[in-house]
Amino acid sequence: MTIGLVGATGLVGQEILGALARRRFPVAGLRLWASRRSQGRRIRFGGRQYPVVALADPEFDGCDIVFFAGTEGEKGASARFASRAVAAGAVVIDNGADFRMDRKVPLVVPEVNPGDLQGHRGIIANPNCSTIQMVVALAPIHRVFGLKRIVVATYQSVSGAGRGGVEALRAEMQNEKCKIKNALFTRPIAGNVIPQIGDFTDLGYSAEEWKMVRETRKIFHDESIAVNATTVRVPVMTGHSESVYFVTRKAAVLRQIEGLLRRAPGISYSRERYHTPLEVAGRDEVFISRLRPDPSAPGAFVLWVVADNLRKGAATNAVQIAEALVGRAGRRPRK
Amino acid sequence: MTIGLVGATGLVGQEILGALARRRFPVAGLRLWASRRSQGRRIRFGGRQYPVVALADPEFDGCDIVFFAGTEGEKGASARFASRAVAAGAVVIDNGADFRMDRKVPLVVPEVNPGDLQGHRGIIANPNCSTIQMVVALAPIHRVFGLKRIVVATYQSVSGAGRGGVEALRAEMQNEKCKIKNALFTRPIAGNVIPQIGDFTDLGYSAEEWKMVRETRKIFHDESIAVNATTVRVPVMTGHSESVYFVTRKAAVLRQIEGLLRRAPGISYSRERYHTPLEVAGRDEVFISRLRPDPSAPGAFVLWVVADNLRKGAATNAVQIAEALVGRAGRRPRK
Repeated sequence: MTIGLVGATGLVGQEILGALARRRFPVAGLRLWASRRSQGRRIRFGGRQYPVVALADPEFDGCDIVFFAGTEGEKGASARFASRAVAAGAVVIDNGADFRMDRKVPLVVPEVNPGDLQGHRGIIANPNCSTIQMVVALAPIHRVFGLKRIVVATYQSVSGAGRGGVEALRAEMQNEKCKIKNALFTRPIAGNVIPQIGDFTDLGYSAEEWKMVRETRKIFHDESIAVNATTVRVPVMTGHSESVYFVTRKAAVLRQIEGLLRRAPGISYSRERYHTPLEVAGRDEVFISRLRPDPSAPGAFVLWVVADNLRKGAATNAVQIAEALVGRAGRRPRK
Repeated sequence: MTIGLVGATGLVGQEILGALARRRFPVAGLRLWASRRSQGRRIRFGGRQYPVVALADPEFDGCDIVFFAGTEGEKGASARFASRAVAAGAVVIDNGADFRMDRKVPLVVPEVNPGDLQGHRGIIANPNCSTIQMVVALAPIHRVFGLKRIVVATYQSVSGAGRGGVEALRAEMQNEKCKIKNALFTRPIAGNVIPQIGDFTDLGYSAEEWKMVRETRKIFHDESIAVNATTVRVPVMTGHSESVYFVTRKAAVLRQIEGLLRRAPGISYSRERYHTPLEVAGRDEVFISRLRPDPSAPGAFVLWVVADNLRKGAATNAVQIAEALVGRAGRRPRK
């Protein structure tokens, strides 16, 4: 297949190329776009060199799948060009937020709602990184017991803000005294935690917090799930962690939840050993530990979920969507 | 008054001396104890030099108040020597965990439950740092509306583990590649978050998490409050942050909660600007921001609370207890 990749030089773009190679996705040709400052670079993939083209007036003809790999901080490319890619006959898999809540666009985590790919109209949205790992963790529980309420607090790494986030943290760590003014975060991030990801909107919640509410409901096809989120940036390079408190609708006991998590696809569950972001960076699974009941509320539990936000939180999930499409090639719409 | 201080060279001990000086506590004499490796050191206070004595066989005669300033990691001194200090006629203010849940020992945050000082029997316990800032934030709300449920996730700095925690983080930050094996934390802490503070005990909760449950109930005199905690170490030097989700018993609206927080003692509340640990280190207040209602649950709210864990979370609170005792000198028990 011929794969297009918009944002090829960014953190997520690079991880998409890595995932395509690692997972032996059948790539026959590769077309790479990025911002103007990457013009002229060449990227090696599968033993060949591919040129990076500035994204000014892209031609998508011949592409079967086009990934838009803009991170949260670099919106706009898919809003501008996704429909052009679809018109050229490609299926778009968009990592950005522009189409996620569009009713005509499926928002897909392959372990959770692969069926939503059916009947897509050319654009498929990849959920937000903090949402993906939470719904992978909760989906098996939601399927059997139903979820009534989720209260989540996140510990999100700087790579969620793209390469600029990583560079800001690295620079600050190397200059402990000279606090660098960075444009991405409102405060120094080294040696600090910042309870803001995205702008503040309705009721004092941040854009990231609303994403966790709305995307979770859309992916689970259940607008009645109460989701309350606090999203916080922490000085970690890669790997998001979340403390997820949840209440089931039907009575559940710990052993049942554990059984579901042990059998669920894409999950690495441990009772004995908890995970930290530093050790899961570079892994594709969603890591769950510290599952425990809330003794004060029947059907309430807490768990700790960690995942590589650039992998399962972005690139791996996007490539899994592509794999699901290929597995269902006959169902892809034809222009 | 003659003040004794056990653990004088530790992070909390040093902050207690700072708080005594800053708050002009009437110190006539000072007796300092620490572990053997600090023997022979001299500490300057109020224009005089005081020797640090190794804590082997301490004589507390003449002390009016003795602070035990061991951090969480250095238990035992008060368990061994507090009763000796009381027998010598002193009142003990203990920062450690040994006596907190003792029914005969008041557990006091002066803004919250000063009345509990009455009738003490010579030992007063300072609550855990993560508990103190949460109960200061919630007390005004609990008083008026009652609290039914609390779900808290913490972002706790390394200084909560004492000087060793600070040294471990500093060493790791300076040696990004060579990850230092430290005895305090189970994993590298620089560029990481660790969801364990204290040992794991009942039901898979850590000691720190149970402290938040049990101490909150004791301080609020309400065993019916449901408290669920996830406590996490983050690579911050000083300053604990907490995302606190809470549900009131009586119906409350945002404006009422805000009004209570604005008027409450010891609280700096902001609607416009949130706080981060880096900027509150070195401050005595408890900083509250990001108060918002949970639209899915009437009477439910979330807030973000940050405080200097060495100050209000430890030393400042301990010295405030001493101030309250002095203000009530007539009520102190006499041997």
